[in-house]
Amino acid sequence: MNKVGIIMGSKSDFEIAQASIDVLKELGIEYEVIVSSAHRTPERTGEWARTADERGLVAIIALAGAAAHLAGVIASETNVPVVAVPIAATSMNGIDALYAMVQMPGGIPVATMAIGKAGAKNAGLFAAQIIGRSDKAMYEKLLAYREAMKEKVYKDNEAVQEML
Amino acid sequence: MNKVGIIMGSKSDFEIAQASIDVLKELGIEYEVIVSSAHRTPERTGEWARTADERGLVAIIALAGAAAHLAGVIASETNVPVVAVPIAATSMNGIDALYAMVQMPGGIPVATMAIGKAGAKNAGLFAAQIIGRSDKAMYEKLLAYREAMKEKVYKDNEAVQEML
Amino acid sequence: MNKVGIIMGSKSDFEIAQASIDVLKELGIEYEVIVSSAHRTPERTGEWARTADERGLVAIIALAGAAAHLAGVIASETNVPVVAVPIAATSMNGIDALYAMVQMPGGIPVATMAIGKAGAKNAGLFAAQIIGRSDKAMYEKLLAYREAMKEKVYKDNEAVQEML
Amino acid sequence: MNKVGIIMGSKSDFEIAQASIDVLKELGIEYEVIVSSAHRTPERTGEWARTADERGLVAIIALAGAAAHLAGVIASETNVPVVAVPIAATSMNGIDALYAMVQMPGGIPVATMAIGKAGAKNAGLFAAQIIGRSDKAMYEKLLAYREAMKEKVYKDNEAVQEML
Amino acid sequence: MNKVGIIMGSKSDFEIAQASIDVLKELGIEYEVIVSSAHRTPERTGEWARTADERGLVAIIALAGAAAHLAGVIASETNVPVVAVPIAATSMNGIDALYAMVQMPGGIPVATMAIGKAGAKNAGLFAAQIIGRSDKAMYEKLLAYREAMKEKVYKDNEAVQEML
Amino acid sequence: MNKVGIIMGSKSDFEIAQASIDVLKELGIEYEVIVSSAHRTPERTGEWARTADERGLVAIIALAGAAAHLAGVIASETNVPVVAVPIAATSMNGIDALYAMVQMPGGIPVATMAIGKAGAKNAGLFAAQIIGRSDKAMYEKLLAYREAMKEKVYKDNEAVQEML
Amino acid sequence: MNKVGIIMGSKSDFEIAQASIDVLKELGIEYEVIVSSAHRTPERTGEWARTADERGLVAIIALAGAAAHLAGVIASETNVPVVAVPIAATSMNGIDALYAMVQMPGGIPVATMAIGKAGAKNAGLFAAQIIGRSDKAMYEKLLAYREAMKEKVYKDNEAVQEML
Amino acid sequence: MNKVGIIMGSKSDFEIAQASIDVLKELGIEYEVIVSSAHRTPERTGEWARTADERGLVAIIALAGAAAHLAGVIASETNVPVVAVPIAATSMNGIDALYAMVQMPGGIPVATMAIGKAGAKNAGLFAAQIIGRSDKAMYEKLLAYREAMKEKVYKDNEAVQEML
Repeated sequence: MNKVGIIMGSKSDFEIAQASIDVLKELGIEYEVIVSSAHRTPERTGEWARTADERGLVAIIALAGAAAHLAGVIASETNVPVVAVPIAATSMNGIDALYAMVQMPGGIPVATMAIGKAGAKNAGLFAAQIIGRSDKAMYEKLLAYREAMKEKVYKDNEAVQEML
Repeated sequence: MNKVGIIMGSKSDFEIAQASIDVLKELGIEYEVIVSSAHRTPERTGEWARTADERGLVAIIALAGAAAHLAGVIASETNVPVVAVPIAATSMNGIDALYAMVQMPGGIPVATMAIGKAGAKNAGLFAAQIIGRSDKAMYEKLLAYREAMKEKVYKDNEAVQEML
Repeated sequence: MNKVGIIMGSKSDFEIAQASIDVLKELGIEYEVIVSSAHRTPERTGEWARTADERGLVAIIALAGAAAHLAGVIASETNVPVVAVPIAATSMNGIDALYAMVQMPGGIPVATMAIGKAGAKNAGLFAAQIIGRSDKAMYEKLLAYREAMKEKVYKDNEAVQEML
Repeated sequence: MNKVGIIMGSKSDFEIAQASIDVLKELGIEYEVIVSSAHRTPERTGEWARTADERGLVAIIALAGAAAHLAGVIASETNVPVVAVPIAATSMNGIDALYAMVQMPGGIPVATMAIGKAGAKNAGLFAAQIIGRSDKAMYEKLLAYREAMKEKVYKDNEAVQEML
Repeated sequence: MNKVGIIMGSKSDFEIAQASIDVLKELGIEYEVIVSSAHRTPERTGEWARTADERGLVAIIALAGAAAHLAGVIASETNVPVVAVPIAATSMNGIDALYAMVQMPGGIPVATMAIGKAGAKNAGLFAAQIIGRSDKAMYEKLLAYREAMKEKVYKDNEAVQEML
Repeated sequence: MNKVGIIMGSKSDFEIAQASIDVLKELGIEYEVIVSSAHRTPERTGEWARTADERGLVAIIALAGAAAHLAGVIASETNVPVVAVPIAATSMNGIDALYAMVQMPGGIPVATMAIGKAGAKNAGLFAAQIIGRSDKAMYEKLLAYREAMKEKVYKDNEAVQEML
Repeated sequence: MNKVGIIMGSKSDFEIAQASIDVLKELGIEYEVIVSSAHRTPERTGEWARTADERGLVAIIALAGAAAHLAGVIASETNVPVVAVPIAATSMNGIDALYAMVQMPGGIPVATMAIGKAGAKNAGLFAAQIIGRSDKAMYEKLLAYREAMKEKVYKDNEAVQEML
Repeated sequence: MNKVGIIMGSKSDFEIAQASIDVLKELGIEYEVIVSSAHRTPERTGEWARTADERGLVAIIALAGAAAHLAGVIASETNVPVVAVPIAATSMNGIDALYAMVQMPGGIPVATMAIGKAGAKNAGLFAAQIIGRSDKAMYEKLLAYREAMKEKVYKDNEAVQEML
């Protein structure tokens, strides 16, 4: 049960979703992707959410902008963990999507990440961390991933020393 | 087709919803009320929305707080006009509910009123205005309602003159 | 009584208003358009609002930016439903217009849509939904409109599958 | 031409308006007070504004909360200087009224003070400063008023020294 | 590996943390609780985080207010999933804690819940959902939990019908 | 006593200040301009403010961005009316300057206009309105100015009709 | 040169300032306190700031609310480090004071702490840290202060364990 | 003990950090620079902070964006004064970093500067002011620096006079 579902409310969100996909690919995690709107295709969205468990999804990454109901709507139909990524799609710079995702009322959890690409990347890593709880190999991969990030910072530091 | 549907996400929203009900009563408009959550009872909420037209609803007033998806979820299931009332139910003072209601993406309209009781009252009046477009008597009632408000302001002015 | 009035505070708002017009055209709804400011041409604006009912308007779409008083000023002069569209015309990104429109005090309803083009589009659809309450054909058109949106999402999903 | 007009949108604003009145009284400035709403009594408000010059008003203080259109509506009908005082009348703590007052578009000035009592007090002082431009005695009174404030701070400082 | 770790930055956060604990108890999930500050006891906090995996934690719930670094600091030391609950501990009503938690840069995920008790409750449920991915019985419990919530809404609806 | 003083905190504010100057020029109002910072040249700024009355200034327009103390600092040194124009000079889009100007404590009034060019234009018009209280000719000019704005809106309306 | 100056804009700020005083007392640091307003007593405030160096102040703690210019005004008159504490004195909950303090333009530094008592306490500690750079004994005291905080957290943790 | 430490969370912050470096260079202050993340390289960051005193740092400038924990994390490990510079690295324009830095809880001070380059410049000047408390020559340099800023404003004023 190690597949991750990625759902986005609009095709224009794909650029951000790519950051989730990249992480999942890099860590060798299986995923499925769907464009389905909470508002324009509610039946398909609901159906997709209700069958998430039987399709073997370990987590769902839901990306949306504006009055971003997608994550909450999905969370209302499944007990598969839902990770939300707010997208800056309006003049409100993503604050609207953030509030519409993170302020879920008690009973229906949605786990919200940062607005935009950083959030999409972290959504992928968070899904991997969930997998890592029951999959030692994935946990090791995450340790290695961190180590690589660390090395990158050390190199960046060296590069900056030369710019002084 | 002059009945108004009132839906609230939680029983605790009833105090605010009362302001809508009071206006509808005062103007002699039929209404039905339901407590049904977008997240905790999605099927009933969806069913209620999908049958709104056949139940003869002229408008739906949806009240909710926090990440207030209720109005948008209903609007995604019906073409009956949805009027949203954000409720200040969290430490964000209703800003979260406002953004989650008003920033609907193109295609699925939600008509948002002010946060709290003023908004609930206006939701009732707005529903009456919709009815007034095809019901001359209701339109006359609204004219009289305005006249009464006007008189109230005149009296308030007189009261203040005496406080000087 | 199926004509929609569109009023904007400034010629520069026309680009946004176009999104309302496009929807009305697409749905075959008659409309009239006026540029008239709440502040610079208050008499004309007031006159236009006071005669809205007798001109047969079923709804008024009011678009404005900055301290956007236009919708409220019109709503104070008529019982024709007023739908407001906040425009991002200042460094505040439309938050100023949104608050100035949505926070109407009890008694004078203004139905606020999202900031910018999404809101303008939805204002047109919302007016159509009002018409649809007493005009079965319009209601059918709206059902078809939704169906088309749905198909669009399905196609977008297919397109994204090929981008994976 | 040294009378100040004070207009408030609702009787409940009187408590704040009192702070303006107190200053005007203290400085011996004539004033008139009216409760008149931009939305509920637009004709009276408009009429009051249009005759402000002929009634000899040197300045108008307009106090309102929520989507506070009052100051802008008055400013659209007169060239008497309009001073606005936003009131915290909703869950938005006066931010809504502030934005609806201060963000006036180019052409129709509204001079905005702080939210609440501090703003109301300053509105009275600002009106006195306008009078002071053509009335030497008023200017002297303002100098004395400042001197008294200064003495008050000196005394407060002494009081605090004893609290150490 | 089904124990949940709960960490709070200050004893005063315990009232909110109780909402997480209540859910875990209700669902029969083992947990450990610690008061440890990111700033005042960084070594203990770091040590606690670094040994989270070997202590068998399936998820960590981190609650904090103000400039809430706790969740991020812990996430920087472990690959156990970190769920953050912002607390309204300052005059900023929890917005400060929310932004300090949710806006994590790419690479170190923190899954943020709503501000306050609703968020704390959902953090517990989210941890249960993670467990539910590899523990069928827990998944069944969550289905039952939802069913109970549903029944509660139905009852609330009946109660409201009697208040009409 | 009909000269207006214009002070800006930095040369980079001149582009915005130009909008004030343009209005004053158009209305034939004398003005003086100075670049002087509240923080970098406090003595000169203080001296300029303290002598404002004797230099015959009828009003002072103070433009500044960031933590915009300029208007308040000047207002603390003179009883000549101070009109403030917040400038969007930082990543906060002028919200910082607005709050630092408009939220003056009771006792020292500052009259705040909109952020940016609209505010600068209105500051010039507001100064003219002050002059207009004791100068009938200026009042007439303002009436004419409004008439011209009105005509402009009528023309804009005609232009839009042709775009339909 | 180890005396700290504490300045507050109003006697009502004393309750918050007490938190700074308490820390300085606890650490045995000499201090002087003054109530002096940037706006109501600008000369005294300026004089106090200009002589700060010769009075031997190592740092200045400036506390103020609303459009809090006090810290910036003092910083413009001295090169003694200025530490600012925003106070929640208006309906804006201290956001106004925070922005008016922290967004200082380049050239005149002001070091801003958190809104309210936490900020006032930290201002005292920060002044002690400055002293600690040239006073080894003070540095040792700060190490001990931290140790005591740590112990307090450990005790709080024990107390919470018993509440489980 | 006059060396300043500059730490930034990411190489992309270097452009802003340059403004701090430029000031330190101009004033002849020794500095060391490191790229080290609170989240990606917590050990190195902690180690760097814990040895700050023994490396002779008089102050630390910490620059970071997003959920900017860097300054707080460092402040939790040292009693060397920490000066924070929020960076606008996300769609929130630096508000996220500002809140995450300035709202530190009582006990662990962080001195926050303005968002971006102005803040970075002031961080350098503030460090110089700290040095100036025990180094008369540095204090003189700061007086000269101010004088030069003053002259610059005078010149800017002259330049603007010619633009009139």
